[in-house]
Amino acid sequence: MARVYNFSAGPAIMPLEALQEAQADLVDYKGSGMSVMEMSHRGKEYDAIHNEAIANIKELMGLGDDYSVLFLQGGASLQFAMIPMNFLGEGQTADYVNAGSWGAAAVKQARLIGNVNIAAECQKDIPTRMPDATEMKWTPGAAYSHITTNETISGAQMKALPETGSPLIADMSSDILSRPIDYTRCAMIYAGAQKNLGPSGVALVAIRKDFAAKGNISLPTMLRYQTHIDENSLYNTPPCFSIYMLCLTTRWLKKFGVQNMFKQNRDKAQLIYSAIDASSFYRGTAKKEYRSDMNVTFRLPTEELEALFIKQASEAGMKQLKGHRSVGGIRASIYNAFPVAGVQALVDFMKDFEKRNG
Amino acid sequence: MARVYNFSAGPAIMPLEALQEAQADLVDYKGSGMSVMEMSHRGKEYDAIHNEAIANIKELMGLGDDYSVLFLQGGASLQFAMIPMNFLGEGQTADYVNAGSWGAAAVKQARLIGNVNIAAECQKDIPTRMPDATEMKWTPGAAYSHITTNETISGAQMKALPETGSPLIADMSSDILSRPIDYTRCAMIYAGAQKNLGPSGVALVAIRKDFAAKGNISLPTMLRYQTHIDENSLYNTPPCFSIYMLCLTTRWLKKFGVQNMFKQNRDKAQLIYSAIDASSFYRGTAKKEYRSDMNVTFRLPTEELEALFIKQASEAGMKQLKGHRSVGGIRASIYNAFPVAGVQALVDFMKDFEKRNG
Repeated sequence: MARVYNFSAGPAIMPLEALQEAQADLVDYKGSGMSVMEMSHRGKEYDAIHNEAIANIKELMGLGDDYSVLFLQGGASLQFAMIPMNFLGEGQTADYVNAGSWGAAAVKQARLIGNVNIAAECQKDIPTRMPDATEMKWTPGAAYSHITTNETISGAQMKALPETGSPLIADMSSDILSRPIDYTRCAMIYAGAQKNLGPSGVALVAIRKDFAAKGNISLPTMLRYQTHIDENSLYNTPPCFSIYMLCLTTRWLKKFGVQNMFKQNRDKAQLIYSAIDASSFYRGTAKKEYRSDMNVTFRLPTEELEALFIKQASEAGMKQLKGHRSVGGIRASIYNAFPVAGVQALVDFMKDFEKRNG
Repeated sequence: MARVYNFSAGPAIMPLEALQEAQADLVDYKGSGMSVMEMSHRGKEYDAIHNEAIANIKELMGLGDDYSVLFLQGGASLQFAMIPMNFLGEGQTADYVNAGSWGAAAVKQARLIGNVNIAAECQKDIPTRMPDATEMKWTPGAAYSHITTNETISGAQMKALPETGSPLIADMSSDILSRPIDYTRCAMIYAGAQKNLGPSGVALVAIRKDFAAKGNISLPTMLRYQTHIDENSLYNTPPCFSIYMLCLTTRWLKKFGVQNMFKQNRDKAQLIYSAIDASSFYRGTAKKEYRSDMNVTFRLPTEELEALFIKQASEAGMKQLKGHRSVGGIRASIYNAFPVAGVQALVDFMKDFEKRNG
């Protein structure tokens, strides 16, 4: 078996040991005579997986019983709608930081529902960046304030949670559990799983119960957070296999520890940023103080060279380095499960490529 | 490896060859060096899976280019809300047949959105059944009419699609592709995958494009069918692995053929119904002309005997025979992938159990 270095921005590389365990048990889970995919979601085998996944997430995020951990469907994209549907009532205002494509996507859906204040706007800035604390303008008495902690496409990351004065909701799809953070500063945290938590098909929501209780009660049942809190994410059939893979991924992360993961993530990113800074051939696209530890974005002197770089890197076993179709350039996504050796291979390749083409 | 006979109502048994192929390729899909779970949903490997799954469904359902096949999230439960949100405008009426727990669940969500007419009501009838054609009262000019073709809990199945006069929407979660049917009679067909199509986490929607075009355009983007038609179910990251398993399942079904599958399904169900009818110990819960080929429901003389039956069947490798918690009794779910040998084993066990306890 030859595993490639998979720099995909998501769905993304997963821990090899999680994949291997899933493979061993795929047809017959722990002697049950059936696959996890074939089990009733109300049976004891699946129940143990479901509740372990919730407990692991609570432990890793440092959340107490005042929070519920939910496994929903529809990705972060459905959360963009569910949040204002639940919490942005008539006559209220919600604050949004718009610092990139995903922040803008959240804003667009909220505007379909209610009144939005843009607390800070730097979506189109080049170099890409996050707003400084001083430029964020919060609405007194806002229904909530919404941030995107890491912009996957632009490669910019918030280094600290802002002080907002209203309940803070954070889209952490691309950097959840990649660093120690005080999650209890947030009323709600959400993340599509397919970057740091597992495969696509499940969205993690961690929500403070007293905040959820304020949600609109006239919504369809599936679109209310309270439904999923009351039913422990078993109101309807959950995406069982995706939750199982998330469970295996959290088990792996618990062994390693979030603090150690953070150190490794920072070191991995620093290796690439150092190579960029040591060269006049490569040019980072994000402002230095907001450079993402998850998605390292950079440009080469010409688009032709970028295409050649991507092609030759792929031939050398480094896949999915093409920047998002909306911005071009190079993007190396190096989430928790991405190995240090793959980052070293990329840096070596970058130096060699510059020598040949610089 | 010892596989059990898994009578679960869903998530349910899947074709062994689909599971084995997924197992072989789980860590390294076809020499790509990555799992299907780790692939970009916009890369060429996943693209081939996605489009083959759509093509297989269209071929198996006999749908032309006037229909779109969509892979959505949130199960049939989110469809219960999306359908009226999209198609039940102010001043309009939608007709619903309420013939069981799932029909009732669809009605409940539609009533949160708009005006509902119950075209026929037999939800609480004992024996369980579907309405006769003559008792269904359709509203002239209704926005749409909604049916549930198989009630998983009660074990009753519609044997033909009704003539409704308005666009027909069918929840076929528990009998899709189990029998030849003229799907073009419907404006929309939907089904959670976890019974006949694959694992949980993906909902199939087949929708006539001209009907979808009438949907409410002011909804959040994720909740509009038109969004997913326009983006070929790639507006956001789809549940890739669930779709992959659905693709493998449809490949298996194509080899067998829907007509052959129907014959086998009918024969399987008939084996159990014959055993019930030949005995005064077992009592079927559905009216004979509406007996489901998918979920065979029956009672024993006492609840104590039912508990003993379930326990001893489980010890003999026949799992998940307990009826839904809302109704009790015995339920044998025998979807497409359930083997004939498992049905024969159940019938033998039933005879033996009656001899010992009758």
